[in-house]
Amino acid sequence: MTYCCGVLVRDGLVLIADTRTNAGLDNISTFRKLHIFEEPGHHVLGLATAGNLSVSQSVVSMLHEGVEDHEMGERRQLRDCRTMFQAAQLVGIAIRQVHRVNGPFMEQSNVSFDVSFLLGGQIAGDSLRLYMVYSAGNFIECTQDTPFLQIGEHKYGKPVLDRAVNYDMEISEALKSSLISMDSTMRSNLGVGLPIDVMVVTPDTLRSELIYRIEPGEPYFHDLRERWSAALRSAHASIPKPPYLKNARPRAVNDI
Amino acid sequence: MTYCCGVLVRDGLVLIADTRTNAGLDNISTFRKLHIFEEPGHHVLGLATAGNLSVSQSVVSMLHEGVEDHEMGERRQLRDCRTMFQAAQLVGIAIRQVHRVNGPFMEQSNVSFDVSFLLGGQIAGDSLRLYMVYSAGNFIECTQDTPFLQIGEHKYGKPVLDRAVNYDMEISEALKSSLISMDSTMRSNLGVGLPIDVMVVTPDTLRSELIYRIEPGEPYFHDLRERWSAALRSAHASIPKPPYLKNARPRAVNDI
Repeated sequence: MTYCCGVLVRDGLVLIADTRTNAGLDNISTFRKLHIFEEPGHHVLGLATAGNLSVSQSVVSMLHEGVEDHEMGERRQLRDCRTMFQAAQLVGIAIRQVHRVNGPFMEQSNVSFDVSFLLGGQIAGDSLRLYMVYSAGNFIECTQDTPFLQIGEHKYGKPVLDRAVNYDMEISEALKSSLISMDSTMRSNLGVGLPIDVMVVTPDTLRSELIYRIEPGEPYFHDLRERWSAALRSAHASIPKPPYLKNARPRAVNDI
Repeated sequence: MTYCCGVLVRDGLVLIADTRTNAGLDNISTFRKLHIFEEPGHHVLGLATAGNLSVSQSVVSMLHEGVEDHEMGERRQLRDCRTMFQAAQLVGIAIRQVHRVNGPFMEQSNVSFDVSFLLGGQIAGDSLRLYMVYSAGNFIECTQDTPFLQIGEHKYGKPVLDRAVNYDMEISEALKSSLISMDSTMRSNLGVGLPIDVMVVTPDTLRSELIYRIEPGEPYFHDLRERWSAALRSAHASIPKPPYLKNARPRAVNDI
């Protein structure tokens, strides 16, 4: 499994991804899933991947080598895209080409062509944007109403984001929220694990603000996990007990 | 969708279930999913259901009317079971009979035979137990190591339980935890909604301690949701900001 999360606030973009891959629980490895495409002053892009590793790696390689664009009759890389919309389209084209070549054989082996991407960043002349690209190559863009997107094992870490994230929060708060979301996911799903890759981009700088790998034992993240656990325990304790069980018996029966 | 959760601690058993069913997002209804089988002094059982409503309702009806047990050559109800293990077996037999009759036709219509149950309670002579029964009729029993079981849309509400629940907690704390878990699920998934049915059984009383329906607007649950949100916000705020972005630029690059 995988968990990747992108948060796009007024103040900037956060992309985080874990690094655990597994083919069954007895075959666990570490692979980078957050890929950086950066030419300062020209473009700064992060691509987080989830799903079948052979598919996502092929897509990333094609984006590096250039994707044959049959409609345009040319081979294009991400650096050739003039807008983020074009970059998301190019990721979609690469997915479809991998599907054309490998999809039928994967189906024969009962391996589903399952992949998804978060593409975030900025290209000179366009604004800072965040997209989620599906395995069919179609995609959606993140908007201010719900300023985050998730791929992979997204459910465990969603309640935290639903409550905490809004478009007007500081970028460091957005990063903190995404790390808490990652922590919730790691606690409940063994398929998601450290190290965690983090990328931060602020608007109109056209360079990454931060590219960082959180390794096991890293002091801040360790502290965040401990504090969050303690805070949840005390939050739990601070809520009054349900009044339904006041004196245990006689029973409070209002419905059967 | 559905979310049901059972917590079994030393102090007793909590079973909770939402009441929302849907056939597509445009067809939402309210159905009771927590079914009570109680003869004080003899047995007290709660059966929470998730999955295809036609299947779960058929199973519940068969358990009321009596399940034809071909191996034993007799028709049996839950009241005829002398142990909780036998009761879980009977639920499994009922599921298999519904599958035999309806499964092939559901498959023809591309409707999956998808159902699961939480069966908890006590039968005179046995102890208070909690089981999860799968659509194949097989089942697992809840143990002290992980004193809760979930069915339906279980992921959103699992982090809260993973952190909060332990076998030695008071029954009222267990009830509170399950309600917070339900709240997390309802916030992130529209397919889970109020009212919520609650059942509490304490050991060796052989009667329900509480059977209660939490309706929309019920003061305690409303207050719990508000307090939990506020506590999470303040927990979030109490964690220091990530140090990675100290001065924004120059970049901290330790890995690319």
